[in-house]
Amino acid sequence: MEFSSKIIEQAVDAFAQLPGVGKKTALRFVLHIIKQEKSEVDKFGSLISRLKTDLKFCLRCFNISENEICEICANPVRDASIICVVQDYRDILAIEKTGLYKGHYHVLGGLISPMEGIGPSNLNIESLVEKLKDNSVAEIILALNATMEGETTSFYIFRKIAPYNVKLSAIARGIAVGDELEYADEVTLGRSITNRVPFDSSFKK
Amino acid sequence: MEFSSKIIEQAVDAFAQLPGVGKKTALRFVLHIIKQEKSEVDKFGSLISRLKTDLKFCLRCFNISENEICEICANPVRDASIICVVQDYRDILAIEKTGLYKGHYHVLGGLISPMEGIGPSNLNIESLVEKLKDNSVAEIILALNATMEGETTSFYIFRKIAPYNVKLSAIARGIAVGDELEYADEVTLGRSITNRVPFDSSFKK
Repeated sequence: MEFSSKIIEQAVDAFAQLPGVGKKTALRFVLHIIKQEKSEVDKFGSLISRLKTDLKFCLRCFNISENEICEICANPVRDASIICVVQDYRDILAIEKTGLYKGHYHVLGGLISPMEGIGPSNLNIESLVEKLKDNSVAEIILALNATMEGETTSFYIFRKIAPYNVKLSAIARGIAVGDELEYADEVTLGRSITNRVPFDSSFKK
Repeated sequence: MEFSSKIIEQAVDAFAQLPGVGKKTALRFVLHIIKQEKSEVDKFGSLISRLKTDLKFCLRCFNISENEICEICANPVRDASIICVVQDYRDILAIEKTGLYKGHYHVLGGLISPMEGIGPSNLNIESLVEKLKDNSVAEIILALNATMEGETTSFYIFRKIAPYNVKLSAIARGIAVGDELEYADEVTLGRSITNRVPFDSSFKK
């Protein structure tokens, strides 16, 4: 696409870097912004810059945080002896929303994916193993996606922490609450039968 | 959605204002930006602010421009006696890409749409009529979408400029080059028969 203005071109290119955004969508965004009030647009622009200046990754768990240590790690009420391993920040949001988890997290920052050139050294796995060395951690919960990459990463972590005396668990796979059995895929249904739970515990919140 | 940080929340809200972007997509954008280099992010933020400070609407045709008068209006080679009426900036880009139009433009800034509360007074129609008063304009070409709103707007402009001595034309509707007749809708095919052109002119570039 050719634009009459260099600034439009640069702004379109910048927006087109965002995941899932092509040049046409980027141009729609730019034209929408040009029609906004100046104060709104300035606020938007400075918010983007502030994402980088005001936010850091928590030194302990790599969660996104406004401080060196994130709110969850800094909260004395939360149980530091349980660590839930997740792929990224969005998974923390999702789990926190359930209100049922009171331990700490560890954000990997991705999943092992040879296709995308992401190996174990690109992820925060060493720092997870490091946490086990003083025996303060009792349990690690793997909460990674049930995809090829997620399973590979889970297995890699399983092997890495095998030498340590720590309980390793994974979130339960099964039929989603509200879903009908007949439409479930075989693998999920199979796992939900293999990993069946005592009847009364299936009602616990 | 609840976020652990006020800045993330504000940034997500800002991105979610963009057309077609929901909160989940906005969060994906924000997380993508957080992972970028600081210099890249600062550039992105300032580009957005510059969209508003460095760009204006051309005083003559309402095209987006870096100067008071846009490049097209300021170009002495272009024919000021022909005005092509378009909905927005993207239509100018599309027509300019053909390289076949050498006249001026007039950007309406939208189409008449009672459903969205857009009336003639919200569009740059008065200023178009104003241009006709000194008899310097010989032809107006309506290049609006062939939708309900586009046709309504075209008809409104047709009535508005009827008192003036100016030729009014509309871009040709018909079967797209490369399309097969049997798959064309009836209205388009009907129009392309009614508005048939001399055989030799259909090859002119």
